[in-house]
Amino acid sequence: MPGPTAYFDPATTSHLDAPTRELVERRGRVLGSAYRLFYEEPVQFVRGSGTKLYTADGTEYLDCYNNVPSVGHAHPRVAAAIAEQAARLTTHTRYLDDHLVDYAEDLLGTFPAHLGNVMLTCTGSEANDLALRIAKAATGGTGVIVTANAYHGVTTGIAAISPSLVGLDSVAEWVRVVPAPGDGDFAADVSAAVDDLVDSGIQPAALIVDTIFASDGVRSSVPGFAQAVSAVRSSGGLFIADEVQPGFGRLGTGLWGFDRHGLEPDIVTLGKPMGNGHPVAGMVARPELVDAFGSHARYFNTFGGSSVSVAAAQATLDVIRDEGLIDHAKSVGDYLMAELPRIPGVLEVRGSGLFIGVTLANEEVALGAVNALKRRHILLGETGIDNDSLKIRPPLPFDRADADRLLENLEAVLA
Amino acid sequence: MPGPTAYFDPATTSHLDAPTRELVERRGRVLGSAYRLFYEEPVQFVRGSGTKLYTADGTEYLDCYNNVPSVGHAHPRVAAAIAEQAARLTTHTRYLDDHLVDYAEDLLGTFPAHLGNVMLTCTGSEANDLALRIAKAATGGTGVIVTANAYHGVTTGIAAISPSLVGLDSVAEWVRVVPAPGDGDFAADVSAAVDDLVDSGIQPAALIVDTIFASDGVRSSVPGFAQAVSAVRSSGGLFIADEVQPGFGRLGTGLWGFDRHGLEPDIVTLGKPMGNGHPVAGMVARPELVDAFGSHARYFNTFGGSSVSVAAAQATLDVIRDEGLIDHAKSVGDYLMAELPRIPGVLEVRGSGLFIGVTLANEEVALGAVNALKRRHILLGETGIDNDSLKIRPPLPFDRADADRLLENLEAVLA
Repeated sequence: MPGPTAYFDPATTSHLDAPTRELVERRGRVLGSAYRLFYEEPVQFVRGSGTKLYTADGTEYLDCYNNVPSVGHAHPRVAAAIAEQAARLTTHTRYLDDHLVDYAEDLLGTFPAHLGNVMLTCTGSEANDLALRIAKAATGGTGVIVTANAYHGVTTGIAAISPSLVGLDSVAEWVRVVPAPGDGDFAADVSAAVDDLVDSGIQPAALIVDTIFASDGVRSSVPGFAQAVSAVRSSGGLFIADEVQPGFGRLGTGLWGFDRHGLEPDIVTLGKPMGNGHPVAGMVARPELVDAFGSHARYFNTFGGSSVSVAAAQATLDVIRDEGLIDHAKSVGDYLMAELPRIPGVLEVRGSGLFIGVTLANEEVALGAVNALKRRHILLGETGIDNDSLKIRPPLPFDRADADRLLENLEAVLA
Repeated sequence: MPGPTAYFDPATTSHLDAPTRELVERRGRVLGSAYRLFYEEPVQFVRGSGTKLYTADGTEYLDCYNNVPSVGHAHPRVAAAIAEQAARLTTHTRYLDDHLVDYAEDLLGTFPAHLGNVMLTCTGSEANDLALRIAKAATGGTGVIVTANAYHGVTTGIAAISPSLVGLDSVAEWVRVVPAPGDGDFAADVSAAVDDLVDSGIQPAALIVDTIFASDGVRSSVPGFAQAVSAVRSSGGLFIADEVQPGFGRLGTGLWGFDRHGLEPDIVTLGKPMGNGHPVAGMVARPELVDAFGSHARYFNTFGGSSVSVAAAQATLDVIRDEGLIDHAKSVGDYLMAELPRIPGVLEVRGSGLFIGVTLANEEVALGAVNALKRRHILLGETGIDNDSLKIRPPLPFDRADADRLLENLEAVLA
């Protein structure tokens, strides 16, 4: 099974203290064998604030990993918006809701004008699944091109295009996999994939990529990106920008990752940080694509666009702007990108803003560093098809002092 | 396009007041053409409490339709649980969380002992999608049997088994559709569908049904149900009980709809009322099925089982028990089932607890009644493959006075 591996091994519990062992065993009995826990020694947090997480005994951890609570753990403004709306009403999109329309207009105002429609889901998986349904309806095609260690979600339709989840050999027959940018010639690889689909009698529907290539090890520089998109469009396919991880300001260059590359996607998908932890996600698209889908299908997602979800999403977007988090992400991210290469053992640093990949010697070193940092109360993860890179992706309020604490501890564990 | 049709027609806005027309038009521009609004004249609610919804001018509507806010709109105990947890922490299942384990144990305690694992998602669509992934992994089959007007969700994989969403002609080639119970011989129809799959070289994976057959017009009596399940099992397939609509006490006979039929499903899916409006859903299964899936796939759903989702779900389950809502649903449901047949124009009444289908003369009468009741500030919907039935499915605190108000108004609009 591919994918991240800095997980707890449920076969080995003797190193855990008794209460942790008991909870891990209870958990395993009821949640079953498909769930994973982070770290050799799993950890429970009971409280969060900003970039910090706290265990029951008050121990503080520095969170350099969690991109979902993007404006900070338990941000008081988002929590208050959720609390107020939950106490008043939560209902669905088959009734009118001016807050929903206000948010949709506000959100669309942050995109190029041709992306005129937004549809709301609860998860990034649902957003990508809907994007593919629409792309297939609009193009008449079924072929999809993804990168080698892509992860786009867990539904049947999206697991089939996620080699990092199901393995390179288990993607669907209508999927073509190309090397991540930097591991090959991206434009030529995508063009060849288009040709291969067409030669196989499969009409291309879309190229879909995470615009920071998070699970491919973080690829901020993508030579040939525009030519790759052109090749797909020439065949009648669409370009879907998966902004579930890079979106909402993390890259420090604006709200959306595709902007860094000067590209104009046909469809953009949104998720994780959209409601700062509340389950809200969505999809933005050219209206003619939505029309091609909507002319023969209605869409309803019971909780998608519900009153509380809209309140959470609006508060999150407001906080990103009001607290200047995009500029902040750039400033602190630039500092980290400048300092990280000075640390002995760091082979390469890639990234933008507060989304940074750090290549170490190999998987063993990377996993060792993740677990050693955790013992020092620093939370990090690893990424890349070879699992040899650290993934730095903290809540956006991550500041210079947080950065220095990370740098010092990373230098210590690599020494 | 099949499915419910008591929707607003966006081509006809001249009958709306100016502010409503403006909001409808703004909404259409940004959400696009796949969304629908209820009623000839759409309505906006700004507040809810118990079984009542309120517009901005304070007009009270009686909600006889919404099953998601199952323990009552904006229930203070659920809202407080959400508010408290959102202000403290929301994080995911890769860290330990004793509240998650407590809830999982509590929930599993309400099921037969053989259903020993629970996995959490955000929506019923995701729950059914995961159930099919697991069923296919565990059986090695791909064939799925559903009823004629079944609706199980909106992902690519689940739209393909939802004839009420995509049309009878557009279900996937590995799907077999049987008449709803009462429209044929359910045991014989399912048995024939199994044979047809096998004859087509398709190994059956599952029979999946909503145990109250909500979109099929509400079918509370299902002769031959056990034989149908046996036929599927004899072929190596599983029985998946979709409890997204009937579950969590609505039927007044216990928490789960399959219990009414004396059946023991292999997998049960949960959704809509699970968090009283918060986006939480899930799937309960035999551990050996989860093992067959988990041995080659890991599962992670970013928001599924997150701290706030667990708080909402636990509070909702606690309220169902502490407020005696199952017995209440039975008592008020029995009263409605006894009184509804006395109303001239009511041809048939089917149901259990507070899930009731009422057949009227035809679709025109049913849709006319839905819109006429809405003008009287009573919210209802329609259902069935012929759209000729009213669907009564209120928040569970619906009491005798609410029932009388519904009965009086229904009698008036049918007169």
